[in-house]
Amino acid sequence: MGSRYDVIGLDADDTLWHSEDSFHEVERRFVELVTPHVAPGIEVGDALRATERRHLPISGYGVKAFTLSMVECAVGVSQGEVPAEVIGEIVGLGMDMLTEPVRLLPGVPQALADLGRDHRLVMITKGDLVHQWRKVELSGLAHLFAQIEVVLEKDEAMYSRVLHEVGVKPERFCMVGNSVRSDVLPVLAIGGAAIHVPYQYTWEHELAEHDGRALTAGTLADVVALVD
Amino acid sequence: MGSRYDVIGLDADDTLWHSEDSFHEVERRFVELVTPHVAPGIEVGDALRATERRHLPISGYGVKAFTLSMVECAVGVSQGEVPAEVIGEIVGLGMDMLTEPVRLLPGVPQALADLGRDHRLVMITKGDLVHQWRKVELSGLAHLFAQIEVVLEKDEAMYSRVLHEVGVKPERFCMVGNSVRSDVLPVLAIGGAAIHVPYQYTWEHELAEHDGRALTAGTLADVVALVD
Repeated sequence: MGSRYDVIGLDADDTLWHSEDSFHEVERRFVELVTPHVAPGIEVGDALRATERRHLPISGYGVKAFTLSMVECAVGVSQGEVPAEVIGEIVGLGMDMLTEPVRLLPGVPQALADLGRDHRLVMITKGDLVHQWRKVELSGLAHLFAQIEVVLEKDEAMYSRVLHEVGVKPERFCMVGNSVRSDVLPVLAIGGAAIHVPYQYTWEHELAEHDGRALTAGTLADVVALVD
Repeated sequence: MGSRYDVIGLDADDTLWHSEDSFHEVERRFVELVTPHVAPGIEVGDALRATERRHLPISGYGVKAFTLSMVECAVGVSQGEVPAEVIGEIVGLGMDMLTEPVRLLPGVPQALADLGRDHRLVMITKGDLVHQWRKVELSGLAHLFAQIEVVLEKDEAMYSRVLHEVGVKPERFCMVGNSVRSDVLPVLAIGGAAIHVPYQYTWEHELAEHDGRALTAGTLADVVALVD
């Protein structure tokens, strides 16, 4: 029996492997490190999120941008009182994130092998070029994909360009990912299909609702049944 | 009269617009800021370049990686003595680089218009996705290019992939850029042609020699005559 789709697009961070949980853990550690150096009543986590929002259009997504935000926030929120050793630890947290092992979500290799039997698979991920490619290589999943795209922003224009390059019409394309804002809404808007696979954490910037035109799956394994 | 090439590839940083001179200027300022906080006889510039070399495989090319190297180096080389305000200034130097205006090299728009009459133009640049795309947009040059690729590494595999996507054979492709290592040698290796247009500075990491199989031009305007 043929599938409804020729090409399945797959997000990577928090869809194929864990990512956001490391940001959570590092943020927790950052708050712990910096709080002793700020005036009472200052919420270091709120200050960090404000710095991130301000930097986002300039420095973009990813660990390097996040680390620079942590450094700038630590200096600013402590009014210059944070010791250099703490700054060194913060940069070290970022470097550790850039080199940490890839932790696949449960059942991912099998689900990709199943999906790949009747579809071409395309990985579409945004973020930092060097870090994303490092994760692709460490994941051991690269050979399962016909194409891998690391993009600046997951918007309608980008999806249209990638679908054109891949040679698939929107009605034969289904995107799978954990972000309604990045993986679902722009794909629906250009006439494609989307399956939302929520992750345990959603970054504030990615929060969005969809109107029910996309399906939701609990895990990537559940996606296999939905696309056939 | 027809050209020898169908597609001209153009590097961007230090080929279409200034880039390396900002790194030089910021490094000079960094040394000035940090030197008062280190032991006598320590060369802060040498320490920075060592940090950069160590980070390169992890954090890659670009301003964010460079800024993180500056922060880590300042903490390390001062043995934790650098004040937080100096760290704040260093992050500010990086943020200023990410938002500074694009300064085109002389004659670039005219040279691209001339080259574009008989060739498809493809921009092939490596570095940080968000910063490179920002510069592309600010440059006002995007409409002159049939395709723009921001890549992780300019090696033979990448050039083969891009030429395949663009639909051109290596013998009908000529790459133009300021880096022998990135713009000349890998293109020659896959059977393409290359024209080296040196910039006033070359980053240590990009230093290389070619064996004379590539032409050298003084400016992008001189390239126009060479490709016909």
